[in-house]
Amino acid sequence: MDKVGKYEFLAEPFHCDFSQRLFMGHMGNHMLNAADYHSSARGFGMKYLMTIKRSWVLSRLAIEMDEMPQMYTKFNVETWVESAMRFFTSRNFRVVGEDGKVYGYGRSIWAMIDTETRQPTDIFAIDNGAINNWIVDDKECPIDKGGRVKMDDSAQLVGTVETKYNDVDINGHINSVKYIEHVLDLWDLDWYREHQIKRFEIAYVAEAHQGDTLSFYRMQTGENEYCIRICKDGDTECCRSKVIFK
Amino acid sequence: MDKVGKYEFLAEPFHCDFSQRLFMGHMGNHMLNAADYHSSARGFGMKYLMTIKRSWVLSRLAIEMDEMPQMYTKFNVETWVESAMRFFTSRNFRVVGEDGKVYGYGRSIWAMIDTETRQPTDIFAIDNGAINNWIVDDKECPIDKGGRVKMDDSAQLVGTVETKYNDVDINGHINSVKYIEHVLDLWDLDWYREHQIKRFEIAYVAEAHQGDTLSFYRMQTGENEYCIRICKDGDTECCRSKVIFK
Repeated sequence: MDKVGKYEFLAEPFHCDFSQRLFMGHMGNHMLNAADYHSSARGFGMKYLMTIKRSWVLSRLAIEMDEMPQMYTKFNVETWVESAMRFFTSRNFRVVGEDGKVYGYGRSIWAMIDTETRQPTDIFAIDNGAINNWIVDDKECPIDKGGRVKMDDSAQLVGTVETKYNDVDINGHINSVKYIEHVLDLWDLDWYREHQIKRFEIAYVAEAHQGDTLSFYRMQTGENEYCIRICKDGDTECCRSKVIFK
Repeated sequence: MDKVGKYEFLAEPFHCDFSQRLFMGHMGNHMLNAADYHSSARGFGMKYLMTIKRSWVLSRLAIEMDEMPQMYTKFNVETWVESAMRFFTSRNFRVVGEDGKVYGYGRSIWAMIDTETRQPTDIFAIDNGAINNWIVDDKECPIDKGGRVKMDDSAQLVGTVETKYNDVDINGHINSVKYIEHVLDLWDLDWYREHQIKRFEIAYVAEAHQGDTLSFYRMQTGENEYCIRICKDGDTECCRSKVIFK
């Protein structure tokens, strides 16, 4: 089996925005699906991990796009494991059209937890470190790795979201993809008529549950660059995000 | 080509709720996709209609499920045109597992509009009434057709939603699927721990745009039966919906 997985998706019309291009949240979802299909086929997917009370937890996701696929376009999401350590693994993505056109890239960092204790567990404990057999260290992913999103007290409260039934994932937590949508909803349609998203970055810090009110604090850190802190219950940090527009 | 179209979908993990079953909104989306694939393959799809400044507009959708597909389940959405009149056509759906298990059914009513004047146009004008060649009047769809959702002034305001960037579809209007999610978000996780959705019904009355605040008025009309009116700008009705739980 190839170390790189390749999965076909379609930019479905109801998953596209007013410009008839795929929404960033749905691109994030396709990448997470590709990760799941890739790891499942290789023996360390979520479905298997559930049987041994383990789960992958997404820690960071960064997506950088030259262009988003247009409505009805078929595209492939390639994914591979770039590196693995005891408590974290990094997995990359490349989004490529049927004609070979590269739309963009993604980078993600994952931890593995014990679903009972919620504590990090040793990734190499799965099938004698089997993940090491799948590492691809020579496939290019030419986007910034990102780092800790730096924010200070000048960040302004720019919105709140009351989380509801449709925000909650199979684990009972606020869905990783919904955070992406809530962050990007901080800008309105008029803004998106003038700006496309160049890079979207998010780090998941603490889990939130349905009923939590999320507060969004934003500061501008460069031309077309914004950092966002998402807190629950007033000041418990759930996520940090950075958005760069072009 | 078969008059009935059949399209395979997967209950993706991030499209499933806390009970690991597909969300109703995503089931609605799959039905709308199936409708689009079916009509496109037969010469009267959205993509072609755009070239002649016409568009299908969803007027009503009713979904009745015995059971929602579980996470990772592959299932088929079958769709066919039940009848066509000058200004409206009815299209049905059947959701069936790979093993032949029937999960549920859907019914929808569509109009065709002129995208410049926004007025209804003659469906039979497309390719000399070609839609008539595709009518299937003998395939069973054993769910209630539904009718006008009857509501009186006793309906209570139970929530408001400020519409944002991710709510808007390719036509610049609030996405049909998002209304389904917003209606179902009127109940919280604790309610869904005790109740499954048996039937969901929605009639689209007027279009809303990003920035509109939607008001949700609800009244109970039977045991586990609720009617919802969605208004914009205070009292302009956008949708009526009925939800029956089991």
